[in-house]
Amino acid sequence: MIARHVRKLEAYVPGEQPRARNVVKLNTNENPYPPSPSCAAVLKSFDLDRLRRYPDPVFSDLRATLAKLNGTSPENVFVGNGSDEVLSIAAKTFVEDDEAIASLDPSYSLYKTLAAIRDVKWVGVPNLKAAPKAALFLLTNPNAPTGEFREPEEVAAFAKKFRGVVIVDEAYADFARANCMALAAAKANRNVLVMRTFSKSYSLAGLRVGYCVGPKPLIDAMYKVKDSYNVDAVAQAVALAAVKDQKWMRGNVAKVVRTRASFAMELEKRGWNVIPSESNFVFARPPAPAKAADVFAHLRSQNVFVRYFPGPKTGDRLRITIGTDGQMKKLLTALKKS
Amino acid sequence: MIARHVRKLEAYVPGEQPRARNVVKLNTNENPYPPSPSCAAVLKSFDLDRLRRYPDPVFSDLRATLAKLNGTSPENVFVGNGSDEVLSIAAKTFVEDDEAIASLDPSYSLYKTLAAIRDVKWVGVPNLKAAPKAALFLLTNPNAPTGEFREPEEVAAFAKKFRGVVIVDEAYADFARANCMALAAAKANRNVLVMRTFSKSYSLAGLRVGYCVGPKPLIDAMYKVKDSYNVDAVAQAVALAAVKDQKWMRGNVAKVVRTRASFAMELEKRGWNVIPSESNFVFARPPAPAKAADVFAHLRSQNVFVRYFPGPKTGDRLRITIGTDGQMKKLLTALKKS
Repeated sequence: MIARHVRKLEAYVPGEQPRARNVVKLNTNENPYPPSPSCAAVLKSFDLDRLRRYPDPVFSDLRATLAKLNGTSPENVFVGNGSDEVLSIAAKTFVEDDEAIASLDPSYSLYKTLAAIRDVKWVGVPNLKAAPKAALFLLTNPNAPTGEFREPEEVAAFAKKFRGVVIVDEAYADFARANCMALAAAKANRNVLVMRTFSKSYSLAGLRVGYCVGPKPLIDAMYKVKDSYNVDAVAQAVALAAVKDQKWMRGNVAKVVRTRASFAMELEKRGWNVIPSESNFVFARPPAPAKAADVFAHLRSQNVFVRYFPGPKTGDRLRITIGTDGQMKKLLTALKKS
Repeated sequence: MIARHVRKLEAYVPGEQPRARNVVKLNTNENPYPPSPSCAAVLKSFDLDRLRRYPDPVFSDLRATLAKLNGTSPENVFVGNGSDEVLSIAAKTFVEDDEAIASLDPSYSLYKTLAAIRDVKWVGVPNLKAAPKAALFLLTNPNAPTGEFREPEEVAAFAKKFRGVVIVDEAYADFARANCMALAAAKANRNVLVMRTFSKSYSLAGLRVGYCVGPKPLIDAMYKVKDSYNVDAVAQAVALAAVKDQKWMRGNVAKVVRTRASFAMELEKRGWNVIPSESNFVFARPPAPAKAADVFAHLRSQNVFVRYFPGPKTGDRLRITIGTDGQMKKLLTALKKS
């Protein structure tokens, strides 16, 4: 009764969500600062009648505001129940059963699982020099877990060569020096979707709202595939409040970027190798003879959670989310105790 | 770049969500009464830190409470972003590319779209006498748009004959005299999932929470296919508050059931044919020579929205959601004006 490819599936394992309050949680790239106070105001005064009725199936207000923010039209914007849903809808919409999904390797580890769930081949490439044969390319920029940033020009050149749809997953773009939104909003664009999330810079991981911007034919096709009411009324309203308070978001981002610089310097002082990061985390290698896996386990024993990805391309480093200055200090102190 | 089957797809058209406040909205089977006050309390005091962090990916608290309510274990419960998501995950999990999805005809019109999105054949059957050849059977009980109820014994006998997975979509079960939950929770059950929603009896259509109960191997497979964080933190908390206030829900249901009886009698007095309903709507045929399509258009011109499904099996009737007594009176008054 269970489809063959599902029987073979290994479930994607998201970063732990420990329930204990005394944990220093630097493992899932959440923002250490709270969302805009206007999000709380929306929740406080939420009209119960809006809970009783179905939500706007095409999120008109949110879409219009996102379009304006990104210099495009509402018809070029699609909203999902988190970027995760945008990705799984894209995998249904743009990929035939006998085609492939490609991404950089290493990159966001979910992509491989996504291809397995969609029951198609996954292709990993080390860089953007050649265009792989695939229907969909998922390009995290800045990349995860490395934090590396690719210039919009390089992405544009790649998209020109690539025959399928390129989704530039800009989950971390607000922490970077540039982004590809202009590429997505350009009239000449035929195959690039730029995806953003409310989970990182807007501090709303608990809410599940992501969106993408791109050519109308691609966006229209995604609307045909989505569930009728995929984004609930509360999520639409709270995300709208967040996006209207750009100043709050920018303030939090600036704090994270400052902490990122000082924390990277601290690590380097201690002999770590830190890849220059344009995101809200660093991907760093402890000085020999320390092994990343051991440092991970040690930190965990000290109630400091970071992320460790085993494997030849990632297993020598730790991905450490940038928290508050206080949290980073706790991590550094815990390191010393080893 | 768009998959062939998506190009051919006609998007499912949900019932209109008019924005005007003076509309008598009886077209999408929403509950006319507000959700439990404890839902409002949850929103008012929602900890912003829970918005900042990712939600519990396996909705532990909600799942435990739902398991208890339904006489089963948490491992037998799956929760989705609305029943819509539970259905689309089931279509991925239990159906191979060359298999079919079946349902009664007429039934919930989304099922056909669901099969088209999944790119598999859809099979409609008039009753449950013979088991069709399909991997997944979607059985709305009470049925929509007819409101007809099938006894659990009939469903159990059908499930025994059917080789694939049977999802009993019990969106309207709280308005019915019985349900199939005991069948789903039974140890001997190998292929029945009973699905419930918070959209109808709990008055939370705006929130998008649905769930299903069934055998652990099927539930486990669905967890492998779902997005990491498919139900947001607010939705988990508000749904939990709603389910804990059974008295409130039962009170609203009792009012709707009373209004259903008196409204059906009123329609029958006026010569309408009303199918006995066990749900929060009636499916009724206006007396000749009136045509359902014309009555629909007339009501709409009077700002009374009901649902009309064209086609040979449904086009002679209207599906009318049971609202408050006041709303039904307005509908009856608007009818007279024709």
